[in-house]
Amino acid sequence: VKPGPQHQAILFASDFGPSSEWVGTCHAVIARIAPTTRIIDLTHALVPFDVTLAALVLHDVMPFASPSIAVLVVDPGVGSARRAIAVRCARGDVLVGPDNGLLTSVATALGGVVEAHELTDLQYQNSTHSSTFHARDIFCPVAAHLSLGLALKDVGPELDIDSLTAPFQPRVAITRDQVACEVTNVDRFGNARLSVTNDALHRAGIETQDAFKVSSGEKTEIARRVKTYHDLGKDEVGLIEDSFGWLCLVLNQAAAAQRLDLQPGSRIDLERVQCSFN
Amino acid sequence: VKPGPQHQAILFASDFGPSSEWVGTCHAVIARIAPTTRIIDLTHALVPFDVTLAALVLHDVMPFASPSIAVLVVDPGVGSARRAIAVRCARGDVLVGPDNGLLTSVATALGGVVEAHELTDLQYQNSTHSSTFHARDIFCPVAAHLSLGLALKDVGPELDIDSLTAPFQPRVAITRDQVACEVTNVDRFGNARLSVTNDALHRAGIETQDAFKVSSGEKTEIARRVKTYHDLGKDEVGLIEDSFGWLCLVLNQAAAAQRLDLQPGSRIDLERVQCSFN
Amino acid sequence: VKPGPQHQAILFASDFGPSSEWVGTCHAVIARIAPTTRIIDLTHALVPFDVTLAALVLHDVMPFASPSIAVLVVDPGVGSARRAIAVRCARGDVLVGPDNGLLTSVATALGGVVEAHELTDLQYQNSTHSSTFHARDIFCPVAAHLSLGLALKDVGPELDIDSLTAPFQPRVAITRDQVACEVTNVDRFGNARLSVTNDALHRAGIETQDAFKVSSGEKTEIARRVKTYHDLGKDEVGLIEDSFGWLCLVLNQAAAAQRLDLQPGSRIDLERVQCSFN
Repeated sequence: VKPGPQHQAILFASDFGPSSEWVGTCHAVIARIAPTTRIIDLTHALVPFDVTLAALVLHDVMPFASPSIAVLVVDPGVGSARRAIAVRCARGDVLVGPDNGLLTSVATALGGVVEAHELTDLQYQNSTHSSTFHARDIFCPVAAHLSLGLALKDVGPELDIDSLTAPFQPRVAITRDQVACEVTNVDRFGNARLSVTNDALHRAGIETQDAFKVSSGEKTEIARRVKTYHDLGKDEVGLIEDSFGWLCLVLNQAAAAQRLDLQPGSRIDLERVQCSFN
Repeated sequence: VKPGPQHQAILFASDFGPSSEWVGTCHAVIARIAPTTRIIDLTHALVPFDVTLAALVLHDVMPFASPSIAVLVVDPGVGSARRAIAVRCARGDVLVGPDNGLLTSVATALGGVVEAHELTDLQYQNSTHSSTFHARDIFCPVAAHLSLGLALKDVGPELDIDSLTAPFQPRVAITRDQVACEVTNVDRFGNARLSVTNDALHRAGIETQDAFKVSSGEKTEIARRVKTYHDLGKDEVGLIEDSFGWLCLVLNQAAAAQRLDLQPGSRIDLERVQCSFN
Repeated sequence: VKPGPQHQAILFASDFGPSSEWVGTCHAVIARIAPTTRIIDLTHALVPFDVTLAALVLHDVMPFASPSIAVLVVDPGVGSARRAIAVRCARGDVLVGPDNGLLTSVATALGGVVEAHELTDLQYQNSTHSSTFHARDIFCPVAAHLSLGLALKDVGPELDIDSLTAPFQPRVAITRDQVACEVTNVDRFGNARLSVTNDALHRAGIETQDAFKVSSGEKTEIARRVKTYHDLGKDEVGLIEDSFGWLCLVLNQAAAAQRLDLQPGSRIDLERVQCSFN
């Protein structure tokens, strides 16, 4: 089944909080302009203000969707001089949001940005021009019009792609026996995602059967590399490849982040050990 | 694009909590009766039991939607003698919910109530007649039938509009140099919304470039009136007009409510000062 | 109105957390395969890891929906040897998820399981075969294909129904004057749901007008059986039949769970008293 225009979808992600009235207002605004456009909420539980983390999360999620129009909003600079933009990616997606590095970071998972425009044409925006809620007044109305067939070039003047805020890079340094990285996310189950992929370890020649000494601040643990939570004994810390390829510190049905006192941003050192734990 | 009957939408807001099974059950109930009706969740993160705050929030949100059928539920009196009602507003919306002031308050943003009915006809309600979950058993089934074309007059007997619970009024007193108001909401970012609009200050002749001494309980701060979060220095308290016209106490990328120890209901006194802070 | 294939719906419930990116990713995966299939989120706020509680909640909710395809995921054993399954219920629903007792428990509310298959045919699953996110890689893709008309028998080999993990049973013991049960849930309003239905009390000959001494750990209260929250005085503990038939300990506009220090799993003893409280 190929979606016709009547099945056009807009993906939507923000740090507005689950089921907040900001999310609902944006849905209502889109539906008023484009009543037959479907809205797919990717997440609204992104950490407030944290553009870098949002970029990591959405970079991983977007490839699972069909090429789509997407409104992506974590926007601490709302109302300042930062531009409102829409970018087309090589895969065909059109991303709408602030020019703060979020869209360009996500675009790297979609073939990169091939065309960029500033959102300046007011006829595709709300007449309520707030300085604090551009999702409602600019991003969602523009996305709704795009879903109805508006050409990208009509939202406003084309921008030099090099003028966009550059994508973020995960902070990680890998040597033969050591990995310096950070916690990028703590999920609902207390799993702590690190800024290093399983692939990166592999490329550095670090074999998958190894265990690691994990240090964070005062805390030290031995973590065993495992394939599933179930491979871990009670209270045993594990290092698992999550479903997006990132390494995570985990426990079996318990919260590793709590045990190791980890928050997003916590610095982590992994040191390879010969499987000597017992 | 004008929605045909196949694009009929029901707006839905409640204090059931984000993604709670109560919300999901209501969606399922609507979809069973009206499988092609779209449901737009305005919010389900409303503060439990707080009808007044819900009224303020939904009063602001509803005008952004097309005239619609809406189920609005914050209902601490569920199962008591309070009536279940549906009201038509001048703009064309039909609001379904409890007669506790919520619907009449929201209606003031939609031209006011022009017709009201009590929900008594059981053939448009669920056979499971609980005394604690009228959203599932009464409000949503009735809204679903309305979305299929049921006439408002068929849901039950017409009510005298004057017999409805009266709308709430924000508590605020403005004099030439002083504003007594309250915190009506603290959002996810820690911004504290006050029960006074920028327009009201204007009408009272208080110029927008002023700063205010903000007092709440023991705490006192100077707040500068700014247009965007970005205009504030680190740790500087600002007074901003939010996207719905309300004044809010804010910090730049930090939580003003925490700094000033504010909760919904906190009494706030604003006193005009000549810009003497430095 | 009878839904045609273009109104096919998938119900979706999980412990992923409200509006988490896992929920959004699953929506995107379904929409990519089946762009016209509607997704109805029953809840994503289920308690992490708690299969038994999820079974209780979804057992109650599912009968309110039309017979549907449903993806139900609380899956602490993800990646272990536990099977991924789809079961058809007597009512017509097809439930997709892990074989850990969740689906069979929910099925008891839908006429029981009449056919079961293991999900092994990879052509209906995602190529990203993670060991931690089967909702994305197995359950949702299979459900999406089923919504397009795939026959249940094509997802993988048929299973002996007796080989499935058995349904859970609520833990409750009722004698003439005493009920030993447990708290199965604490809701957003602080109501504590017990593992005993009003019907069960009735069948045991315990009249509905009785009051009970409620003991939990050190705490003891007298709870009066009432029909609505409103029947309770300030600070009076009530025992109410909730909208799904379960008994709940409640206060009027306050949190009974906090007052009695109750969590899911708390052991509760109810002892019948002659209405002597005052």
